[in-house]
Amino acid sequence: MGHVQVEFQPQGVRVTVPPGTSVSDAAIAAGLELYMPCGGEGRCGKCKVVCRNGKCSDPTGAELEALSAQELQAGFRLACQTKISEDAVIQIPLSSRLRGKRILEEISARPVELAPNVRRVTLVVDPPNLETQNDDLHRVAQALGWYEGAPEVVLRAARALPEAVRAADGALTVTLLGDKIVEVQAGRTERGVYGLALDVGTTTVVGYLVDLATGKRVATASALNRQHQFGADLVSRVEFSNEEPHGKNRLRRAVLEVVNEIVVEAARLAGVALNDIYEVTVVGNACMHHMLLGLDTRHIAATPYVAVMRQAACFSSRELGIRINPRGSVYVLPLVAGWVGADTVGVMMASRLCDAEQPTMAIDLGTNGEIVLWTGERLLACSAAAGPAFEGAQIKQGMRAAEGAIEHVEVEGGDVVCHTIAGAKAVGICGSGLLDAVAQLLELGVLEQSGRLDDEAKAQKLPPQVAKRLRGEGPRREFVLAWPEESAVDSGVVLTQADIRQVQLAKGAIRAGAEVLLAEAGLTAGQLSAILLAGAFGSYINPASALRVGLVPEVPVEAVRGIGNAAGAGAVLALLSVEERQYAQEIARRTAHLELSTRADFQELFMEAMMFP
Amino acid sequence: MGHVQVEFQPQGVRVTVPPGTSVSDAAIAAGLELYMPCGGEGRCGKCKVVCRNGKCSDPTGAELEALSAQELQAGFRLACQTKISEDAVIQIPLSSRLRGKRILEEISARPVELAPNVRRVTLVVDPPNLETQNDDLHRVAQALGWYEGAPEVVLRAARALPEAVRAADGALTVTLLGDKIVEVQAGRTERGVYGLALDVGTTTVVGYLVDLATGKRVATASALNRQHQFGADLVSRVEFSNEEPHGKNRLRRAVLEVVNEIVVEAARLAGVALNDIYEVTVVGNACMHHMLLGLDTRHIAATPYVAVMRQAACFSSRELGIRINPRGSVYVLPLVAGWVGADTVGVMMASRLCDAEQPTMAIDLGTNGEIVLWTGERLLACSAAAGPAFEGAQIKQGMRAAEGAIEHVEVEGGDVVCHTIAGAKAVGICGSGLLDAVAQLLELGVLEQSGRLDDEAKAQKLPPQVAKRLRGEGPRREFVLAWPEESAVDSGVVLTQADIRQVQLAKGAIRAGAEVLLAEAGLTAGQLSAILLAGAFGSYINPASALRVGLVPEVPVEAVRGIGNAAGAGAVLALLSVEERQYAQEIARRTAHLELSTRADFQELFMEAMMFP
Repeated sequence: MGHVQVEFQPQGVRVTVPPGTSVSDAAIAAGLELYMPCGGEGRCGKCKVVCRNGKCSDPTGAELEALSAQELQAGFRLACQTKISEDAVIQIPLSSRLRGKRILEEISARPVELAPNVRRVTLVVDPPNLETQNDDLHRVAQALGWYEGAPEVVLRAARALPEAVRAADGALTVTLLGDKIVEVQAGRTERGVYGLALDVGTTTVVGYLVDLATGKRVATASALNRQHQFGADLVSRVEFSNEEPHGKNRLRRAVLEVVNEIVVEAARLAGVALNDIYEVTVVGNACMHHMLLGLDTRHIAATPYVAVMRQAACFSSRELGIRINPRGSVYVLPLVAGWVGADTVGVMMASRLCDAEQPTMAIDLGTNGEIVLWTGERLLACSAAAGPAFEGAQIKQGMRAAEGAIEHVEVEGGDVVCHTIAGAKAVGICGSGLLDAVAQLLELGVLEQSGRLDDEAKAQKLPPQVAKRLRGEGPRREFVLAWPEESAVDSGVVLTQADIRQVQLAKGAIRAGAEVLLAEAGLTAGQLSAILLAGAFGSYINPASALRVGLVPEVPVEAVRGIGNAAGAGAVLALLSVEERQYAQEIARRTAHLELSTRADFQELFMEAMMFP
Repeated sequence: MGHVQVEFQPQGVRVTVPPGTSVSDAAIAAGLELYMPCGGEGRCGKCKVVCRNGKCSDPTGAELEALSAQELQAGFRLACQTKISEDAVIQIPLSSRLRGKRILEEISARPVELAPNVRRVTLVVDPPNLETQNDDLHRVAQALGWYEGAPEVVLRAARALPEAVRAADGALTVTLLGDKIVEVQAGRTERGVYGLALDVGTTTVVGYLVDLATGKRVATASALNRQHQFGADLVSRVEFSNEEPHGKNRLRRAVLEVVNEIVVEAARLAGVALNDIYEVTVVGNACMHHMLLGLDTRHIAATPYVAVMRQAACFSSRELGIRINPRGSVYVLPLVAGWVGADTVGVMMASRLCDAEQPTMAIDLGTNGEIVLWTGERLLACSAAAGPAFEGAQIKQGMRAAEGAIEHVEVEGGDVVCHTIAGAKAVGICGSGLLDAVAQLLELGVLEQSGRLDDEAKAQKLPPQVAKRLRGEGPRREFVLAWPEESAVDSGVVLTQADIRQVQLAKGAIRAGAEVLLAEAGLTAGQLSAILLAGAFGSYINPASALRVGLVPEVPVEAVRGIGNAAGAGAVLALLSVEERQYAQEIARRTAHLELSTRADFQELFMEAMMFP
């Protein structure tokens, strides 16, 4: 059986694959990232490509449904459905590409006393003598101030010790991982010692390289989670893991590959040797945590939603395959529950939620929504299945926060004005834009409390520039955010009635989760001193819009604050101080998890919360 | 450059080597073990071989010195000196071969409460539930009775856990190494869990395979330490390690190879899978300890004789390269000093020396002599450089305790009667035979207090059969133990005046060490309730002979007892109980080491102790 050559445009990348390979698999083989939120099942219609040359398989049912007649005629296909049978040239349109993604890297870890698990110290070790005949390790222990017992030592360091301790008149640099000596070098070294805090998100992975002698961040690197090719959301990845051959391993390798690229990139940016990175700390939701460790996720996804392990754990970098110093270690922060992960623990650490004297709520609006309520005495948490609407999936022209995404919408001079990321021509709409758009439509009176785009009669009361944007009938009604000429896509960018329904489902779930926690604690929204919004989406949204659409309980607008990538900040804190690790374990244990699926009140609150205020 | 073929007789083994290879290297390449106590330096003259065909290098100075004119004419050469330049047939005489070696395997560990570091337990784990949503590991911890915190878990076991815990209705077999779960299997398993106690001696390595569920020994395997090819005694091996390319690594690999053969053989004998062996405990002198771990021994061998590390330590089986379960561990017992090793700690553990109410002495007569004195309050230890005489080196016809070695000598019916190992024709004399022979010569009056073989005048007072055996003049005087017709070697077996001088040096060192300890403690020999002799040689010697030649302080003959391979018993104890490990560390710390080389009194006591009583 021969092979066929596929060329991808505009990248100009060529790859050779067996005939019958799907375009999406060929793109993966070529190292290109396609936007494929449904995981390549033909459901989302996002992976549109144009076949320019060459013979492809006939359109599938999924393609006939997802593509308009014009698109089909113009050669548009779904990359996940189309199989290549001879040499082909494939055009990947801007909207199907993943690039220039805005990744939240800002990290505002509160100050902490530096007490890292990894230490590099320079000592002067006494020479051996006939009186005591103390061994080399014992004299090193004494120089370290160890009088009771002795530190452990890895074999390699023990092997290097006799020469190192004598080569520079007893001057010795010792690297300790906890109470274990992992490296010895003769004399004083100028080389620093580093750790990497990893925030493994469903969508993006961010690494913060920290100088453990100073506590300063020296580089940040981030990349899209390459598991994306197997599904945009956790549920489709878990399915992939369960059903595809070697699914679990392929998911593990995909995220590991990204992690290692981040390690290498952060080290390169800071000019640090990989061998001088001795520790990695990891936060992530339970699925990311399990997938990175190679643990089965199937029981997280099905009732009773239990994890394989929730406790904080330490593994060797070598056994996990992370390319820092091979004698280094990887500390994974604890999980609260199958759907309240180490990322939420990180949020609690970074915000010191429990230090607040008044009740405070934190919401991590990543791909999933985790909500924590500090009542002043207790920690309650739940996870609300918001769905991926805020990430751009299930929204007709939804996209993630990449170049050309409408990120902010306002009404100015009698018309709707859209702001896009990087000021580019509009390609689609991302979460913060979506929320703004819905909030503005509510303000304009275009949108009813029930979520129905108002009928034309009422629309006629609108400023003419706005009224013009409302078009179509009934369920096909839509609102034009960007006209074709303001846009990089032929159709312009519109918000449909169906899109608004998706927003209602998503925000309703978050809000209902928040209300369940308040009810459980016997509190009202008015008693909350603050609502902290964490995560990529949470940090970019406009608090006024969040309140206007009813995403969060009703508090004064100044009480709603973004706190940045607080999950990542938790990982940094764990890197900086072993006491923070204790704290992480303590709060993870203290947090009572409410399983929403078992609560009668949740369904009712959810129905209510889907309405707009 | 071509290659030459060498055939070894009587084994019939062929090997191809580059021209210029020494016969000893060719023998090593062929997997044959030659007796080469000096480590191949041409000093001991023990590696005699006969070149039957083929061109060899001309005899070296060392060969001309070691071999008689007749031997040279008959084709005798030293294997370590002779280089092969064309195809050759080499005959290895019986006396140059290592085989049928008697290795002390008997082990008399005192009873101990079974509390091994490795445990395999069968549990029934509760199913997950929606109320608590406890993770799999947490439920396992609960079934293990862990209510505070949780056990650690290795990645592989965590990966296997979700399936294992569900496959047999919660029935689960868990293997714990300390507080770490290293393996999980669904259901109940019939497979046991095992540990191997290793006694790594300079000459021999012994492994005791123990069923850790019952504490019963299920197999014993032993082999000669293959480091022998690099030198019989520690000093020559340390020299090899320091001076030869990759010397340290070659020594490490040589002993590791033997260790792994023992692991495999013990497992085979007991029908146990290698993966079911989870732990190895190791005793050995400091050099063996260091060489197995790959640590530099040079500072043990030179003043101030310090070890790299003395403390007990735990390494992974994988990093040490020992072929038990790759997630298993290797526990090395602590050392007291550079020349008082973990083997001596093992002797103290097995004999529970410190439990004695009266002062007691233990002497480990291996290749080196370590002496421990329990005063009733304090533990004092020293190491006496006895030299390898009792191992057969530096004795003209000395050999180790292998087939054909004279192991026991008595006077019966007016003549000397020699008993050999396995009742074979005499090939040479081993340590216990040597001590007996000297003791009998003292009894017969053939040997003066000074160590001089008596002049013929006195010899004429001897029984005629005995008198006939005394021959030669002055320093060439010798005593025939086995006539040629009783012997497998043409010359018969003789004890020379020079041999007796070697015995004086060896026993003098041991005795002087014992006297230094007594003096330090302010005790006399009469106050000793027992002298315990450990180790291969120590266990086989006749207490009466030991007292007659003055090897040990003067106590009643019944106070001198062999205690078998007590070092190995210490390793077994460490395998059976973690409390024994605590005890080992405690006694290693408590033991005060006396460095004989710095003591003025030692030299004087040594001169005295060389005389016969």
